Amino acid sequence: MESLRETPPPQRRAAASKKPNLGKEAIDLHRRLRGKIEIKSKVPIRTMHDISVAYTPGVAEVCRAIAQDREKAYEYTSKWNNIAIVTDGTRTLGLGKLGPEAALPVMEGKALLYKQFGNVDAFPICLATTNIDEIIATVKNIAPVFGGLNIEDIETPKVLEIVDRLNAELDIPVFHDDQHGTAVVTLAALLNAMRLTKREPENTSVVVAGAGSAGYGIVKILKEIGVQDITVTDSQGVISKARDLTTMNKYKLELAEMTDRDGSSKAGLATLADAVKGRDAFIGVSGIKGLLTGEMVASMNRDAIVFPLTNPDPEIHPRTAAQAGARVIATGSYKFENRANNALVFPFTMRAILDNRIRNIDQKLLVAVANALADLVPKDKLAPFNILPDVTDKRIQPAVTRAVQGAK
Amino acid sequence: MESLRETPPPQRRAAASKKPNLGKEAIDLHRRLRGKIEIKSKVPIRTMHDISVAYTPGVAEVCRAIAQDREKAYEYTSKWNNIAIVTDGTRTLGLGKLGPEAALPVMEGKALLYKQFGNVDAFPICLATTNIDEIIATVKNIAPVFGGLNIEDIETPKVLEIVDRLNAELDIPVFHDDQHGTAVVTLAALLNAMRLTKREPENTSVVVAGAGSAGYGIVKILKEIGVQDITVTDSQGVISKARDLTTMNKYKLELAEMTDRDGSSKAGLATLADAVKGRDAFIGVSGIKGLLTGEMVASMNRDAIVFPLTNPDPEIHPRTAAQAGARVIATGSYKFENRANNALVFPFTMRAILDNRIRNIDQKLLVAVANALADLVPKDKLAPFNILPDVTDKRIQPAVTRAVQGAK
Repeated sequence: MESLRETPPPQRRAAASKKPNLGKEAIDLHRRLRGKIEIKSKVPIRTMHDISVAYTPGVAEVCRAIAQDREKAYEYTSKWNNIAIVTDGTRTLGLGKLGPEAALPVMEGKALLYKQFGNVDAFPICLATTNIDEIIATVKNIAPVFGGLNIEDIETPKVLEIVDRLNAELDIPVFHDDQHGTAVVTLAALLNAMRLTKREPENTSVVVAGAGSAGYGIVKILKEIGVQDITVTDSQGVISKARDLTTMNKYKLELAEMTDRDGSSKAGLATLADAVKGRDAFIGVSGIKGLLTGEMVASMNRDAIVFPLTNPDPEIHPRTAAQAGARVIATGSYKFENRANNALVFPFTMRAILDNRIRNIDQKLLVAVANALADLVPKDKLAPFNILPDVTDKRIQPAVTRAVQGAK
Repeated sequence: MESLRETPPPQRRAAASKKPNLGKEAIDLHRRLRGKIEIKSKVPIRTMHDISVAYTPGVAEVCRAIAQDREKAYEYTSKWNNIAIVTDGTRTLGLGKLGPEAALPVMEGKALLYKQFGNVDAFPICLATTNIDEIIATVKNIAPVFGGLNIEDIETPKVLEIVDRLNAELDIPVFHDDQHGTAVVTLAALLNAMRLTKREPENTSVVVAGAGSAGYGIVKILKEIGVQDITVTDSQGVISKARDLTTMNKYKLELAEMTDRDGSSKAGLATLADAVKGRDAFIGVSGIKGLLTGEMVASMNRDAIVFPLTNPDPEIHPRTAAQAGARVIATGSYKFENRANNALVFPFTMRAILDNRIRNIDQKLLVAVANALADLVPKDKLAPFNILPDVTDKRIQPAVTRAVQGAK
């Protein structure tokens, strides 16, 4: 990881010099392994008797039991621990519409993290359709073998409707990592940043740049914890009720309702520069490298909180933000300290959701997980560059599980 | 395994006395394991660098490469070795319409055998729909992550149309085990039975009881090797062109065309008893226990070949068939010797199909595999109760792979 210090020590410089080869290293790894996941048998098959018990004819008794009571599928099959990571390849990483096959390496990578950190059996489902109704029909049709879903890298606003409808029509939990995961890790970081800068949600003003899945999820979770002053921007500028309706969609209208209830609170605010001036916190989920300038940060309130989370290149380089006066800075990138990455959230949260048979993933649950993550950083260790636990921290799972149980 | 001898030796009797507990043993195993398969990570994730190479941001380079050339998905992802075992729960084992959840234990069991014997990564897909168009649309939509499909336990004739259409519309191989797998193992057994009874395909008359997926697949493969005299029966009696059209469907009409081209060859044959009289071989895939009587076997030609393959209870008990004069007897059941089970076929054949990127599974390929399996029984070991290799025989995979390569 690159340091935020001006001159990194030699070993850090060495690591940095390797960075341009990360892509090549990835290609080599993928060519060598030909896939990062495989199916593992939990039953050794050594004799004909083994086959007779695990397969036919013995299995017939198990089938009959489930046919009589479908709930038994959670006891006798892998359904309890299976999730599908579903994408249509329309928004793979920051790269756009690469198609379903090209999305597979990402979904397999995500499955690795699900297994490693949450012991969740995640199988990638990359769809050959980008049609909203076909996606929903397909996912509903394959749902019987899964205990949960992770919706991933589907373009907005389509994906928000897909998540809403699947959530309404299926009896298994639908986790939308770009929306829910990002919101949780962002809130966890923000909670500790507010502690460091002695702020409370009620009097912290926040600007969210980006009105996609992440921006939508972040605004919802900020509202849930009582943040009053939220301004959202997209490529057309500040979102408000006063804005031309042709630049809005159902979910942007919902954002306007949440952040500009009286329809006049954003008067005089047109651009991101207008929006951040005199505000406490900036959260960037815009996908646009360099969107935030040092001047904009300098125009923010004292001890500003700046989270340029776009990957791999943030809205502002952390060093520039620091030089402009930002007090707490977090990015989503592996290259910098304070990495607010969803990997802190999705494996652990899904584990707890599956174990507790949570059906609906609501804001209360998400806030509880964010609080649990934030609380894992001890008060005496809390510092501007230490606001989140490390993903390998063994305390995460029990803390998240307790949080999810408490939010039931 | 129960012997065909009248009085089994004591240890065999002990094994037989355990049989009533197979169902209980299966329930216990399934409850203890909660699923028979899991996802395994092929990449250890120990450091942030590991994540950066296997997941973001390094994986972006892999995604870009596949977006430029979709074929690269076979090199860089698990697609080359992934298959879906697809069912709609309408014909689970011999138990009928149990629904998708109740089919899952069978599909997981099948996945075990795919992994154990073929090193194929098979994932169960149990569909929430039984509608033919929805099944086809769903399978096509999830196809991008799979290198092949195994269609399983879907009712006939619907499944035959599904297989035909998927085969025409997808660019990955579609293996229909009930049709293709059963045909191959049956032919392998029949080839050695013909050797034992000094018959040639051209002058061997065969009666196939059952006109579902298995019967359809068997008739096709028998035609391919040159069997001329084939009679097929279903619940309405002998299938012929002369039969009332309301008792036929597209695939039964095709069976009639294959077995009764001139429309008069089945004149005077109404029932199964009529059909088997004076014939050489009986193949039972009817699903009906006790369909074939000792009297019917006695009416067949000398050195009759009798394969009552219905599971778990065959069309005739092997002992009864032997007493009535049958020379070579095979069943599909674990309870008897000469077990003609699909497990001898599907894992090894799929392995060879995936490795050779076979796109269409044709009759030539299926016959080649059947010949390879039959040839694994050495001439000097060939005997009425030894006509097939054991599923654990390490020579099967290389032999099947050579056969598939030769049939390309």
